[in-house]
Amino acid sequence: MKFGLKFVVAAAAIAMLATPAMAAKTVKWKLAMTWPSTLTPLASPPAQVAKLVEEMSGGTFIIKAEGKEKHKAPLGILDMVKGGQYQMGHSGSYYWKGKDISTVFFTTIPFGMTTAEQYAWFYYDDGMKYMQQVYDRFNVLNFPGGNTGVQMGGWFKKEINAIEDLKGLKMRIPGLAGEVFAKLGVNVTNIPAGELYTSLDRGTIDALEWVGPGMDIKMGFHKVAPFYYTGWHEPASEMQFLVNKRAYEKLSPEHKAILQTAMKTASADMYYENFAASANAWEQMKTEFPNIKVKTFPVPVLKAMKAASDELLAGYAAKDPQFKEILESQQTFMKKARAWTIISDYNYIKTSIELEQ
Amino acid sequence: MKFGLKFVVAAAAIAMLATPAMAAKTVKWKLAMTWPSTLTPLASPPAQVAKLVEEMSGGTFIIKAEGKEKHKAPLGILDMVKGGQYQMGHSGSYYWKGKDISTVFFTTIPFGMTTAEQYAWFYYDDGMKYMQQVYDRFNVLNFPGGNTGVQMGGWFKKEINAIEDLKGLKMRIPGLAGEVFAKLGVNVTNIPAGELYTSLDRGTIDALEWVGPGMDIKMGFHKVAPFYYTGWHEPASEMQFLVNKRAYEKLSPEHKAILQTAMKTASADMYYENFAASANAWEQMKTEFPNIKVKTFPVPVLKAMKAASDELLAGYAAKDPQFKEILESQQTFMKKARAWTIISDYNYIKTSIELEQ
Repeated sequence: MKFGLKFVVAAAAIAMLATPAMAAKTVKWKLAMTWPSTLTPLASPPAQVAKLVEEMSGGTFIIKAEGKEKHKAPLGILDMVKGGQYQMGHSGSYYWKGKDISTVFFTTIPFGMTTAEQYAWFYYDDGMKYMQQVYDRFNVLNFPGGNTGVQMGGWFKKEINAIEDLKGLKMRIPGLAGEVFAKLGVNVTNIPAGELYTSLDRGTIDALEWVGPGMDIKMGFHKVAPFYYTGWHEPASEMQFLVNKRAYEKLSPEHKAILQTAMKTASADMYYENFAASANAWEQMKTEFPNIKVKTFPVPVLKAMKAASDELLAGYAAKDPQFKEILESQQTFMKKARAWTIISDYNYIKTSIELEQ
Repeated sequence: MKFGLKFVVAAAAIAMLATPAMAAKTVKWKLAMTWPSTLTPLASPPAQVAKLVEEMSGGTFIIKAEGKEKHKAPLGILDMVKGGQYQMGHSGSYYWKGKDISTVFFTTIPFGMTTAEQYAWFYYDDGMKYMQQVYDRFNVLNFPGGNTGVQMGGWFKKEINAIEDLKGLKMRIPGLAGEVFAKLGVNVTNIPAGELYTSLDRGTIDALEWVGPGMDIKMGFHKVAPFYYTGWHEPASEMQFLVNKRAYEKLSPEHKAILQTAMKTASADMYYENFAASANAWEQMKTEFPNIKVKTFPVPVLKAMKAASDELLAGYAAKDPQFKEILESQQTFMKKARAWTIISDYNYIKTSIELEQ
């Protein structure tokens, strides 16, 4: 033996103090997201969570986020997190409506709540309780993962002046909104993202719905369809973080708190990021393409959409008691929340418009 | 020597692994807030930061939050954090307008941005850059600390039908809004919070401004003044976290990241908490006091307020180049942001109102 006792003990102690992060075993997780890893703002929350978790844990908790370009299964996220291939996922809850229709409530529903109303329902009413109840059957934890705000109603090549104008219209619009349009006679189609611009340009479709100015501008739709309709169908689309329950339960209390706080921060942040991106993109679109016309569907068309939407939701509620219960919770809260939105934000913007006139 | 080498080394290693939190010295901070420590939602962000920081750091970073009932210096927070008596503070930036008028931009200004617009300016435009620039002279760091959303214009005993109705009106309203009202002939007074209800009830004052339903309901103003005016003067009041720079610089990288993330989460959360509280309180007020009338100031009155506000801001800008620069940054961003707010959230709520008719 070359070294004395004191030296060895001191060396062991110094090594541990100098690298406290190494004292505990480093936790390494993988996250799969539905989007390409470069598609901001949707890809921002997973990137931010990975960064914050690493920084806050001093490198003892590492999350590697993979985009769809890597795992090739954009709509397999829930299954992969449930199965444990990935400890985490980032996606949209309403993609799982085929597995459980109640998942739609944690994204958005037609004529539903705004972002502020919905976050208030999630965190200060019954939202999180129901969110977890629905995801318990998949053995995953689910958390808000970023909001787009009000999504625009889509790009149309022709103006919609009456319900008749919807009949036979070829439109790309997924989800419940697509079901509503189908009830009104629209020929609803699904087309891969990469083919949308060409399809709209060549008239293979007459209209499409995407997100809002911040994301739409990258797709170029404003160059080939002059009518930009305001939103009704996705008033506050929330993304989701999925976490495998067994993996979560193995985390230390510190890592659990770090992960939860990082997810909550990243989720709030995506809303601000997309808001700023939309403000800037809309300014740019208007300047470069002054012929773009923002239109709101005429009230009779909106009334028909609302009736079709109510009918659709009532149909699901009749078949599924959990859906019925969550729908009632949202509608009860929305009634109170909307009354407040109207006398606060809505009235303030109304005032600001009147002052410009 | 009683023990062999291997035992001693192993014992030292086990002791360190078992208590990693104790390996580093525990950081203990104190936070002073302007409000009583029970006054939600304003007191919620400091409480949440203290809780999250302790949990995420595994007890190696402890923040003790003190309300004004303890430190007795609600408007001394900036000085106490600057001087190092407290490492942190929670307050409202516009309370320091006597020290530097540019501090107002980090709370709200009359006819300014909404909550979403302002957070987008903070985080995805130049807001944080200017915020830190203004607070550099105090040697403190400043971070968003929670938003109230649109504040209501206040409780009035009589209706305001014309500018003449403002002349000689006795009203409690602080800050820039008070300066605007003073320009329009209002007799602006300041009265301690504890005397406000009695003053309004007995007619010592004719009107007062507080926050919004969630906080106003605890004060009982709705029982003694029937007219509840919509807001124009504080469209998105942001609270602030103050951090002593020297104390911050001594933190480990992990503790810095933990503190920043906790503050950002707590700030987003206060907005949701207050939104939910206002939705519930407004429902309760309307039910218990059906005679409350929500009113918006007539357009000529609002135009006079806007002109007085513009004049006031232009006056400060003429005297202070930094104020001028930040005002221009806010107004440039607000113009783009408002255009987006109008075609997204505003239009959606307008649609929802039209569908009810």
